[in-house]
Amino acid sequence: MVLLPGRDERLRAGHLWVYRTEIARIEGAPQDGDAVAVRSASGHHLGVGLLNTRSVITVRLLAAGDPPLDEAFFAGRLRSALAVRGRSGWASSARRLVYSEGDGMPGLIVDRYDDVLVLQTLTLGMDRRKEMLVRLLNETVRPRGIYARNDAAVRRLEGLPREQGWLTEAGPTVVEIEEGPCRFLVDIEHGQKTGFFLDQRENRLRVAELAAGSRVLDCFAYTGAWGIQAAAHGAAAVTGMEISDAAVVMAEQNAARNHCADRCTWLRENAFDGLRRLAAAGPAFDLVILDPPAFVKTRSALPAGLAGYKEINLRALKVLAPQGWLVTCSCSYHVDEAHLVATVNEAARDARRTIRIVESRSQARDHPVHPAMPETRYLKCLILAVD
Amino acid sequence: MVLLPGRDERLRAGHLWVYRTEIARIEGAPQDGDAVAVRSASGHHLGVGLLNTRSVITVRLLAAGDPPLDEAFFAGRLRSALAVRGRSGWASSARRLVYSEGDGMPGLIVDRYDDVLVLQTLTLGMDRRKEMLVRLLNETVRPRGIYARNDAAVRRLEGLPREQGWLTEAGPTVVEIEEGPCRFLVDIEHGQKTGFFLDQRENRLRVAELAAGSRVLDCFAYTGAWGIQAAAHGAAAVTGMEISDAAVVMAEQNAARNHCADRCTWLRENAFDGLRRLAAAGPAFDLVILDPPAFVKTRSALPAGLAGYKEINLRALKVLAPQGWLVTCSCSYHVDEAHLVATVNEAARDARRTIRIVESRSQARDHPVHPAMPETRYLKCLILAVD
Repeated sequence: MVLLPGRDERLRAGHLWVYRTEIARIEGAPQDGDAVAVRSASGHHLGVGLLNTRSVITVRLLAAGDPPLDEAFFAGRLRSALAVRGRSGWASSARRLVYSEGDGMPGLIVDRYDDVLVLQTLTLGMDRRKEMLVRLLNETVRPRGIYARNDAAVRRLEGLPREQGWLTEAGPTVVEIEEGPCRFLVDIEHGQKTGFFLDQRENRLRVAELAAGSRVLDCFAYTGAWGIQAAAHGAAAVTGMEISDAAVVMAEQNAARNHCADRCTWLRENAFDGLRRLAAAGPAFDLVILDPPAFVKTRSALPAGLAGYKEINLRALKVLAPQGWLVTCSCSYHVDEAHLVATVNEAARDARRTIRIVESRSQARDHPVHPAMPETRYLKCLILAVD
Repeated sequence: MVLLPGRDERLRAGHLWVYRTEIARIEGAPQDGDAVAVRSASGHHLGVGLLNTRSVITVRLLAAGDPPLDEAFFAGRLRSALAVRGRSGWASSARRLVYSEGDGMPGLIVDRYDDVLVLQTLTLGMDRRKEMLVRLLNETVRPRGIYARNDAAVRRLEGLPREQGWLTEAGPTVVEIEEGPCRFLVDIEHGQKTGFFLDQRENRLRVAELAAGSRVLDCFAYTGAWGIQAAAHGAAAVTGMEISDAAVVMAEQNAARNHCADRCTWLRENAFDGLRRLAAAGPAFDLVILDPPAFVKTRSALPAGLAGYKEINLRALKVLAPQGWLVTCSCSYHVDEAHLVATVNEAARDARRTIRIVESRSQARDHPVHPAMPETRYLKCLILAVD
């Protein structure tokens, strides 16, 4: 494959995506899913990747040289990803073992929940190699089972069906994991993403250290991990707000499992509505956590999305007692840290509250950022002291 | 004071600096150091601050309303700053109690080293209030003594002399502090800044967790805190590189004090030269720390500064064994995280090493960032897994 003139700079810096509009011609007759070499207009070899002509991102590069993309290649990449996890300290029995581009394997996600793996093959190239990947994972990680969560919407962009199920012998789809002093149930079949938000692990544990004695409000609570972690670290009372019935049921089970159900209250409520209602009643919390879903999924949605972030931050400030903590997150890639800071600053000025950014945090260490792909750094978590 | 038309937007967002070029006229006859009210061209009240016509930053705002900037005002600001520290957990007997704009007190730095305070009044407005500030600090913190480190070059921009000495009864100028499991000597009279780099505290403690069993190279080692913290967490061997004789002498004392002198070697050497020398000998370290002084002090120095960052990162990658860690920092405000990531990425491509950004960290929590002043967020610390 040969690129159009001037379209090689990003790839030379190490970026892994070749867009359809950047391609001059495809040589030979490779099939979708095949390995293809990519060259600049002047003939410079840029690397080798997997082809999918149905996708706007038509090639995902895997290597800068020209190695065969065979089982030995993927075994090496997998060993490297596992080795990086092996060198970090872990306060959990759950972690992301493979983070797509961040681990040099575009399109592949592997999450470990105790002794079960959940796999996502989000590109056609990876999907075609699913059997081989399962074999490699069985050999290297030796899990009890491997479950595919290939129901992600993004698969449609690759012309792939949405599907899920066991890739090995079937087992229970609700798994218990440990995180710091807590245990959480993870529903790998029905849960969000692969079942749990591993990317906030270290942020939850850090924020919990601030929670002792506090009245905590956990918005967009999902299965309760932020709030229960806070309760386990001594929070006086936790209120969780979550619209999904199934998530609230699991949050209640998680609270019971961690012996803090008596200090936890779960409200089946949309966080926008709930925050508005609580704001009318005045400040009643010492620590408020805002960990919403991505409000901005495309660049054009930025203004509306920022308005949403501003609204929840403004309401959160109104329910926060003097000398409180606001933990505000965004997992929208298009909202960078400066956007989030500016939005929270606007909310604080409207609410006439003084805020200090005490910590600027990012995603958990098992979601490594690729240095040439800002797309792989998506999570922002600000810890604000509020007067 | 009235601003020129269109020069109020930044201040309306909460920024605290009024530049000389933004001022239409000064009403009345305020003296330098006096409190002045600032209004937009259309007469909108923007806040009250302290005047210094000798400085390019002619007013530093202290409040959005119009409170008298009297002793009660500063007492309130000081209480607020101390309360934020009181709510955070501390693994140290040393911390920054007042961080200038980050704590709503532009120009004032107060660092606590055990029972001694080191104070900097870096603007004329704050310098004129030094006696009052000392009185307030004595009343609220009750330190053994307060020492002024007003030898910072930045004071010249305010027309202030460079001076230092005790503002209370004199005492020893070498103080011992605790940080995690370690004790460090701090020379408040001759040391860098106020004597110690408190802004890296949490980063040092986090990196030390990765150091068990490792061969550590600590470049720009100063008094050895990074390396000794690593040794205290089980590093097999630490090599520190530091050009200042006085700093090396104190690093040796610090190593002895923490019972790890047998595992620590201090090289009196410029880190650029030392890294070049070590790189020629090949990879011999598992963890390399690059915590250089600011290479970029003005925007125009950015290209040359980035070349410097690239050089040390390239050399560091060359001394790093496979599956190592590179910790790379920049305290240059003009070098943002994206600059640093791009620079390290270039170095990694030149060195043909694969890097993953496992953590993106910032300054310690006692250096709070002002949400409308990006100038207050200056420290970047990346933890990279290197294959």
